[in-house]
Amino acid sequence: MKIDIKPGTFAFPTPVWCVGSYDADGKPNVMTIAWGGICCSVPPCLTVSLRKATYTYGSIMERGAYTVSVPSAKYVDEADYFGMASGRDADKFAVSGLTPARSQLVDAPYVEEFPLVFECKVIHTLEIGLHTQFVGEIVGIKADDNILNDKGLPDMAKADPFAFSPTGKDYRVMGAQVGTGFNSGRRFMP
Amino acid sequence: MKIDIKPGTFAFPTPVWCVGSYDADGKPNVMTIAWGGICCSVPPCLTVSLRKATYTYGSIMERGAYTVSVPSAKYVDEADYFGMASGRDADKFAVSGLTPARSQLVDAPYVEEFPLVFECKVIHTLEIGLHTQFVGEIVGIKADDNILNDKGLPDMAKADPFAFSPTGKDYRVMGAQVGTGFNSGRRFMP
Repeated sequence: MKIDIKPGTFAFPTPVWCVGSYDADGKPNVMTIAWGGICCSVPPCLTVSLRKATYTYGSIMERGAYTVSVPSAKYVDEADYFGMASGRDADKFAVSGLTPARSQLVDAPYVEEFPLVFECKVIHTLEIGLHTQFVGEIVGIKADDNILNDKGLPDMAKADPFAFSPTGKDYRVMGAQVGTGFNSGRRFMP
Repeated sequence: MKIDIKPGTFAFPTPVWCVGSYDADGKPNVMTIAWGGICCSVPPCLTVSLRKATYTYGSIMERGAYTVSVPSAKYVDEADYFGMASGRDADKFAVSGLTPARSQLVDAPYVEEFPLVFECKVIHTLEIGLHTQFVGEIVGIKADDNILNDKGLPDMAKADPFAFSPTGKDYRVMGAQVGTGFNSGRRFMP
């Protein structure tokens, strides 16, 4: 039986992405978000939504660029910390012991230890409400060589990313494969 | 070692969401997307990105509304089919045997058998490139009573959603919990 629930942000699964930026002084910062996703294939773009109150918001507005570093499960503590602390008060790279690396393509740093990185230039900024959505064109991707599949593309199982549940606050890794895209549903096709 | 990869939509994890809409004749239709996510907390909003060529695109443009039904893993074949066939050529509800239910809040149908449903009114339409992004305000949520947690909110593990990998095309359910939001990273806090 379906129950009506008060509207909220209870979607599953949401990604755990770490957004890198430089502040006005050039200090590298990183914050974790779950409000984001791919939004276009050509040009390849992804979105991240941030509250105006965040330190990262001002940095992205100023620099017009950000990175998204996708953490593997072994870095869940660091990623969670990046979502709790503010770059206003802390040098999150120094505290966590992770390494800021300078993108050669966009004016933003990424997390060297994380296996997959998207380098993004802001092409749209959309004020929605509490959150502002930045649409970033993916102008570069960096992946650890040990997560690549036989086609040279990042393999999700090897990258070992995790998702977030906005209701239970649980971080979960990917589990069993239950199907294959553009294949599992063929039995319904004419 | 980091390898540079040609830009593409290789982000992990991406959601598997089924977007419901009515066409000009009032026929219910549903298509599966992975380009989407939450984009704002207040008001609660989510995005779906569609190519203009899709049948659903025209329906959403006309009706200004859509639903997102989140499939559980047992419906992976149906969800995959919804992403392969077009509502122009097929009655996807009839072919799959799933049930279109009329939302009382927005002018769009949802998938009765899926455990979690978002009812959305379009508040922004953003032309990005190949894809158009629809920002929908979540004006209602329906959840099966058997996926609710002790706070009356949807529990991700009980909903049994799955994610999609754009590189390997694999659908994967959620696996082990590896941490807890706003808690795992406390050891780094002052």
